Amino acid sequence: MPSNVPNIPDIVIGRLPIYLRALTRLQQEGHEVTSSHELGRRLGISSAQIRKDLSHFGGFGKQGTGYRIAYLREQLEQVLKVNREWEVALVGAGDLGRAVAHYKGFTDRGFRISCVFDAAPNKVGKSVGDLKIMPMEDAPKIVAERGIKLAMIAVPAENAQEVADLLIAAGIRAILNYAPISLKVPDDVRVQYIDPVVHMQRMTFYLD
Amino acid sequence: MPSNVPNIPDIVIGRLPIYLRALTRLQQEGHEVTSSHELGRRLGISSAQIRKDLSHFGGFGKQGTGYRIAYLREQLEQVLKVNREWEVALVGAGDLGRAVAHYKGFTDRGFRISCVFDAAPNKVGKSVGDLKIMPMEDAPKIVAERGIKLAMIAVPAENAQEVADLLIAAGIRAILNYAPISLKVPDDVRVQYIDPVVHMQRMTFYLD
Repeated sequence: MPSNVPNIPDIVIGRLPIYLRALTRLQQEGHEVTSSHELGRRLGISSAQIRKDLSHFGGFGKQGTGYRIAYLREQLEQVLKVNREWEVALVGAGDLGRAVAHYKGFTDRGFRISCVFDAAPNKVGKSVGDLKIMPMEDAPKIVAERGIKLAMIAVPAENAQEVADLLIAAGIRAILNYAPISLKVPDDVRVQYIDPVVHMQRMTFYLD
Repeated sequence: MPSNVPNIPDIVIGRLPIYLRALTRLQQEGHEVTSSHELGRRLGISSAQIRKDLSHFGGFGKQGTGYRIAYLREQLEQVLKVNREWEVALVGAGDLGRAVAHYKGFTDRGFRISCVFDAAPNKVGKSVGDLKIMPMEDAPKIVAERGIKLAMIAVPAENAQEVADLLIAAGIRAILNYAPISLKVPDDVRVQYIDPVVHMQRMTFYLD
């Protein structure tokens, strides 16, 4: 498989982590082999869609024999570049930031929060888990020195853009934004959003 | 506008909360009028897409004069049925559940967490904000009695399906799932997922 896969639609890339999560779960349950039908049933995605998505990367399975889970996991981890551990800078050590820092789901899925910053003097120097909270003004220097490419922003909406600008200037290229605003970023920076209300409002449309 | 809008693609519904969030932000910044171009610039969505999405509901704007923000907000809130306050049941009072319970972003956007449940005896009876943590076995009765339709699940992956089954049997019709597994639910139940790792993995694909 080429390490630089060209022209894959972003919507396909967006489904790969979901496949990877399902495969990990299947493996934890003791399965060694699966099929596009089984994956589809678990995920509510058609088996044809799954086969088509995976065909962008050359397939991975043989007709009739299904997918070897360990192999498919490895391949997807390689495509998504999470067969390594990415350092992540976290900005914001309020309730939300602290919960993010304590979240155990990052481990073994490619990420490690390695530094936490906050602008509030009364938070600086305190600990979140193993990490000491550092002052926000140190963030650009530390991000640049360590070559950190990923950040999570868990600050109030009114500060999020300014924080993003500082981080991007220091070298951050991908941001997971927990603040409920859309960030303006250069074309070579990716942003993903975590806003539970957007998901809730999408569901109430269907309720009586 | 009809209260029951037929045949709108779910992907369009999914963008409406993002428009609503941007409009709220514009209003907070003191704007009274906006355009599909301004919204599009803020959101990284084409203005044509925005006009097309809104045309499903009859438009809301006049060619050349833009959108009156207060009016468009009201209309979107009505379409999404968040011009009311929905009670939400939260299951799981660990780090993540507590952060969700403390999250201030739900207020004024249509939601109020009105009860918190946990299966751990050492958590039951303690408080999260204004709410006393109740035992998980009380959840079905309370959800049914109060007619609660929405739930958030913030329990470990291995318990999430069982919790979902109990809640659905009690009347829950929409679930925001923070546990990193895909839930199996009946066709008349909606699920949305919050899994930060899925978003992170979607971005590392593009990094060097």
